[in-house]
Amino acid sequence: MTLAKDITIAHRVRRDFPILHQEVNGKPLVYLDSAATSQKPLFVLDAWRHYHEGYNSNVHRGAHTLSAKATDAYEAARDKVAAFVNANSRNEIIYTRNASEAINLVAYSWAMNNLKAGDEIILSVMEHHSNLVPWHFVAQKTGAVLKHVELTPEETFDFENFKTLISEKTKLVSVVHVSNTLGCINPVQEISALAHKYGAKVLIDACQSVPHMPVDVQEIDCDWLVASGHKMCAPTGIGFLYGKEEILNAMPPFLGGGEMIADVYLDHSTYAELPHKFEAGTPAIGEAIALGAAIDYLNKLGMDQIHAYEAELTSYLFEQLETIPDINIHGPKPNANGFGRAALASFTAGDIHPNDLSALLDQEGVAIRSGHHCTQPLHRYLNLTSGTARASLAFYNTHQEIDVFIKSLKDTIDFFTSMLG
Amino acid sequence: MTLAKDITIAHRVRRDFPILHQEVNGKPLVYLDSAATSQKPLFVLDAWRHYHEGYNSNVHRGAHTLSAKATDAYEAARDKVAAFVNANSRNEIIYTRNASEAINLVAYSWAMNNLKAGDEIILSVMEHHSNLVPWHFVAQKTGAVLKHVELTPEETFDFENFKTLISEKTKLVSVVHVSNTLGCINPVQEISALAHKYGAKVLIDACQSVPHMPVDVQEIDCDWLVASGHKMCAPTGIGFLYGKEEILNAMPPFLGGGEMIADVYLDHSTYAELPHKFEAGTPAIGEAIALGAAIDYLNKLGMDQIHAYEAELTSYLFEQLETIPDINIHGPKPNANGFGRAALASFTAGDIHPNDLSALLDQEGVAIRSGHHCTQPLHRYLNLTSGTARASLAFYNTHQEIDVFIKSLKDTIDFFTSMLG
Repeated sequence: MTLAKDITIAHRVRRDFPILHQEVNGKPLVYLDSAATSQKPLFVLDAWRHYHEGYNSNVHRGAHTLSAKATDAYEAARDKVAAFVNANSRNEIIYTRNASEAINLVAYSWAMNNLKAGDEIILSVMEHHSNLVPWHFVAQKTGAVLKHVELTPEETFDFENFKTLISEKTKLVSVVHVSNTLGCINPVQEISALAHKYGAKVLIDACQSVPHMPVDVQEIDCDWLVASGHKMCAPTGIGFLYGKEEILNAMPPFLGGGEMIADVYLDHSTYAELPHKFEAGTPAIGEAIALGAAIDYLNKLGMDQIHAYEAELTSYLFEQLETIPDINIHGPKPNANGFGRAALASFTAGDIHPNDLSALLDQEGVAIRSGHHCTQPLHRYLNLTSGTARASLAFYNTHQEIDVFIKSLKDTIDFFTSMLG
Repeated sequence: MTLAKDITIAHRVRRDFPILHQEVNGKPLVYLDSAATSQKPLFVLDAWRHYHEGYNSNVHRGAHTLSAKATDAYEAARDKVAAFVNANSRNEIIYTRNASEAINLVAYSWAMNNLKAGDEIILSVMEHHSNLVPWHFVAQKTGAVLKHVELTPEETFDFENFKTLISEKTKLVSVVHVSNTLGCINPVQEISALAHKYGAKVLIDACQSVPHMPVDVQEIDCDWLVASGHKMCAPTGIGFLYGKEEILNAMPPFLGGGEMIADVYLDHSTYAELPHKFEAGTPAIGEAIALGAAIDYLNKLGMDQIHAYEAELTSYLFEQLETIPDINIHGPKPNANGFGRAALASFTAGDIHPNDLSALLDQEGVAIRSGHHCTQPLHRYLNLTSGTARASLAFYNTHQEIDVFIKSLKDTIDFFTSMLG
């Protein structure tokens, strides 16, 4: 590692993230848990604050200046989301609390009303709980059958296996774009093309891709795509569903209440046009506006640049991790330039319990996660019953932070080895 | 109005609300739209900021210090909500995005699974759309029948009419505590007692009561109660459902995903205990923490003191409005001390369209709302097809602001009268 190499995007942005400049347990914080939630730049926090402090008002019901201003900002943020994922229209973006709610929206509104006993839904064994549990509900209610694509020996999405599962019975393929545990980038464009050949719909869980690389819904040609604001520099409480306009139009509303109606009578209602049809009640206005600011911030850095820098970090992370004996990293290796997988590593270290690893690293100020990362079935599939430890990076992380992590990890392993030895 | 009378709670708190110290259309802002959304004190905005800037991390999956800190704060806020409405247990508080989502949760999880054709749900004609549309969905799916309590000549909840509607067929009574349009305070304790005699469950929409008066779920003895954070000095994106623990325990989960599970397998899941069972995915962590701060803030002022001061404002508002000919205020009159109704007035002024009233007042910096206030059926019931104008107050409003409002309203009416005359 040379100094020149390390005058990076991270060094340019770190001043934007006050949270990173603190000590935890007496040591400088090294935050390596961005796959769970990203940190937020001042620009985003200021946008939220500016709304609540400057023009907080309810939206779409406006009869006064503040309300009009709030409505404009809330809807302008929707335009930003639409452009960010290259949606065809702003009507294709529905705000939700998080990606889980977005998947549930599709499960309740589309799947519950369109699937019947014997229809098949294809998921994969690497899915996050949020892309499993809603389909359990659908299977229980409709009698639809769940199938799960397995892994290749390299622990990636097994496309050959997918081909054997798909058939005319398949009505939905719902898969993750980038695994939050394996870090593999799934061939969503090819998955989508094959699914459509069989007339199946396609939902992409893009929580771990949208914050880290350019994502284009028209290129993927998915029917729905979901993502979480809090993983892409926006605050908590906001996420979104993208859906093709024609499909969203054909779906009945999910949640009922204000905002999503046209006319309400005592015994029935008519519903608003897209996108409001799916947004019941006072929305997360400040959070949506802050999501728009997060997108401005990411765009300013450039998603290509973010992706390239994170690949550089990935390369360095794997290089360093591989110097430690007994470390077993899951998912595919990065290619020569660090591309081809996400900037995270889920690993085990011999017989040391992942929770012990994370607890000891925390004492050194290094925040990694341990456990099942909301992918219990994947951990079971890989026979990792104690879970894994996971270090996950973002564009604000530095090579030096990886050095601290590696050193702390080595010390921790040495400590346990000497204790056990 | 004397100066002495006006050294009030409002004057003590106004510095806490920077938004109120601005000009709108060249005039000092007079914000009279708190029934749509309240303004937020710095204390609340700071709590949100402090989370995102100081210890932002995902909750309940913690293996490091920031995560533990975030989890503690998120759960401490739940304790505050529980205490604020006097719940029996913290397990009885479920965070939602808003009150609408909370009602939908009960509709989907309880009503869809427990009601059958011919069962009856009693609502009232004054309900907000959020307490109508979810029950339309339930009626459509289950065949349950909706009944609506009408109004007394004073435009309050007609308890005698309620008595004629309730029967052994009634499975649910879902009514608003304080009407956002009429301002009447409904006898929820008596409604609850009678409903329970018939074995019906009771849901209370407390959006307009919880921010303005002490509310005690055990005293009301309701089965569920919902409220919105953004109407009680918290940010957007957070609300809550209170439910009796035994009832919530018996309800199946609503949204599926991370956080709400115990064990997930590829084809089925087991669910977390309360309250997590109903909170799928990464929650609105910062917003929940800010809701806790809002409750601290309200408690410091004292809900009894807030209620008493708002009654004083109500009394003054009505006194002043009644000096204007052609003003027709809906809902009950306040009693001699201003109590007995909410601090809001929905009104018409002769033949002037309410939208014209609000637009002209906005030019004077006075923010009121016009339209149907999400109670279209009530407006239809009262034959108010053009809607009403509504001025709604909170504890940060002053007598002087009411004076400005009244003067602007008089000027506006004079303007239209001269134009039409």
